[in-house]
Amino acid sequence: MPRTAFFVSDRTGITAEMLGHSLLTQFDDVNFRRITLPYIDNRDKAEETATLIRQQAAADQCRPIVFSTMVDATLRKIIHVEEALTLDFFQIFIDPLERELGRESSHIQGKSHGISNFEEYKARIDAVNFTISHDDGVMPRDLNEADIILIGVSRSAKTPTCLYLALQYGIKAANYPLTPEDFGAHTLPRLLLPYRTKLFGLTIDPERLSQIREERKPGSKYAQFDNCQFEVNEAEALMRHVGVPYLSSTTRSIEELATSIMHRAGLVRRTF
Amino acid sequence: MPRTAFFVSDRTGITAEMLGHSLLTQFDDVNFRRITLPYIDNRDKAEETATLIRQQAAADQCRPIVFSTMVDATLRKIIHVEEALTLDFFQIFIDPLERELGRESSHIQGKSHGISNFEEYKARIDAVNFTISHDDGVMPRDLNEADIILIGVSRSAKTPTCLYLALQYGIKAANYPLTPEDFGAHTLPRLLLPYRTKLFGLTIDPERLSQIREERKPGSKYAQFDNCQFEVNEAEALMRHVGVPYLSSTTRSIEELATSIMHRAGLVRRTF
Repeated sequence: MPRTAFFVSDRTGITAEMLGHSLLTQFDDVNFRRITLPYIDNRDKAEETATLIRQQAAADQCRPIVFSTMVDATLRKIIHVEEALTLDFFQIFIDPLERELGRESSHIQGKSHGISNFEEYKARIDAVNFTISHDDGVMPRDLNEADIILIGVSRSAKTPTCLYLALQYGIKAANYPLTPEDFGAHTLPRLLLPYRTKLFGLTIDPERLSQIREERKPGSKYAQFDNCQFEVNEAEALMRHVGVPYLSSTTRSIEELATSIMHRAGLVRRTF
Repeated sequence: MPRTAFFVSDRTGITAEMLGHSLLTQFDDVNFRRITLPYIDNRDKAEETATLIRQQAAADQCRPIVFSTMVDATLRKIIHVEEALTLDFFQIFIDPLERELGRESSHIQGKSHGISNFEEYKARIDAVNFTISHDDGVMPRDLNEADIILIGVSRSAKTPTCLYLALQYGIKAANYPLTPEDFGAHTLPRLLLPYRTKLFGLTIDPERLSQIREERKPGSKYAQFDNCQFEVNEAEALMRHVGVPYLSSTTRSIEELATSIMHRAGLVRRTF
């Protein structure tokens, strides 16, 4: 029988979900039903939320766990019901911060994932547009504007990693696929030569690559293990030869790839 | 003089950054220098981190604030120095959860943003691929696989919102631009008719739209205020006429648009 976890927020619920998720992954033998209740920003909605939580407690015959990020103390109290364990993130952390900083917090909702700074916001949208228009080897003239250019064989996770870098950090991330035509010469494709210092590689275990490609193009030479092994070996040899740092996407999530690349390439985020 | 905020984690640092950022936005008259230290996963790195924090405290002549998400209690203690205010997320929340759930947490690092479930991970990559191949009116046959199709005038934030839905929630999100050819008939473009129930609209204030388009194509008719106002009016009239729900992107961030659409369209996330 699953237990219920609620993520309650006066705005998007993204912070409540992430915090709750980080904690719940530490209890992976417990099965959680997850319910997000965003935009609980007035008394009526807060009271409905309290009722929902109480009903769930009765249905589950077990206390729900409520992760909340409510800036307003009155609303916070309303959703804090006896029938649940409520962990409110602002309630716990704002006090020590107010003491340390010697001032009161603003108690304004939704500052975290809203448009607080239009310049930052624009940087992010620009990065997304740049990244989409420089995906998969599409290389118009303004490639020198790229903050980073990911290279690697087809299906090594370049595109989602670039998009994550653009959306979350405002990084202009282009990507270029290494294909069999690029091997043998032991030098970078000519297009990339001027941007050597912006290159970062992704590689992948050939067996995993073969599985991924097989789903995309079943029975193709492209997906065959031998071909995948050849491409991966050549791509890695090339990157080592020309001194391009690289990471494997085999056991790394998009978040892990993106944060490692930010860190290792010394990139500075444009948005928070 | 800015104060320093550190975000320290044994893995990506994403949770620590989000936690800290949510809190710091509540003190927006304080200027913070932000330093993320990810992958602090052994004793040596933890000791280096402690040294860095102490040096910063001395340089700032002011206590840094350290937001940390360290699963390992030994490493957590090392980075917890007297010269800073340290707010550790696991330290504070794991205890009440262990008591409530009646079991110990696993204390395994990096469960939150790692590849914990390959099926979920694949759903997410598939969604990103689908979204990219159905961007900006590119509509191959498998459009019926879309979870949602965003419509709206050019530059109303359809693409970044779709990408966010795909990357963060594993939602297959297509988008279709409403252009002057689509107006006047007071009916949906023919391509979209079979998918009426999957449509969700984005709109935008004409003045803002004109600014955004002006940066992209300076001096064009496309960017003129009158033209923007005409397109926005027609698009909104069309969406109201055919009963497509819509939201304005003028004052909403990508996160706010994406979470509101998830909520209002009743979409269920495929990844956590």
